[in-house]
Amino acid sequence: MYKMIALFKKPEDPASFDEYYFNTHMPMTNQIPGLEKVEITKMSGSSPYYLMCVMYYASKEAFKEASKTPESKATGKDVMEFAGDLVTFMFGEDVNG
Amino acid sequence: MYKMIALFKKPEDPASFDEYYFNTHMPMTNQIPGLEKVEITKMSGSSPYYLMCVMYYASKEAFKEASKTPESKATGKDVMEFAGDLVTFMFGEDVNG
Repeated sequence: MYKMIALFKKPEDPASFDEYYFNTHMPMTNQIPGLEKVEITKMSGSSPYYLMCVMYYASKEAFKEASKTPESKATGKDVMEFAGDLVTFMFGEDVNG
Repeated sequence: MYKMIALFKKPEDPASFDEYYFNTHMPMTNQIPGLEKVEITKMSGSSPYYLMCVMYYASKEAFKEASKTPESKATGKDVMEFAGDLVTFMFGEDVNG
């Protein structure tokens, strides 16, 4: 699988963040064509990030195609507007271990 | 699921790192009792980390039990010896999105 990973630093107001993230942002994310699975993990307080969202695509090519869609562009714009100062992105291919 | 996540910064010698990581460290990791699944992702060059390893446990309790085993302790000692300056750990619970 190919993964796009969003790591969020702890927001000043976690309750407001969660409200927006789960009720507005994730419903947008879930509409991205080609997005096969999402795993969201809430980190413990000792972790350097507050939340991780892993978005799974079948391949890098599938991810690239998805990125061209209006749904993906709208979702990307949204995350930068509500959490541009908190989010770090990573991209990569799964390997066997 | 409960996740323990290891994020590795880019090593000075990626080939040596990979050799040890995949041929020595991961076989140790895979022996930890209660470890249900592992996903390893190699990140693209623009990402702030080189590699991510996500270790899945059924619950926080299962993870705590696993952490008491000799296999877990040996694996933890090993990673600090070969990559203590590269690794960051995170811990958390999956939530629905």
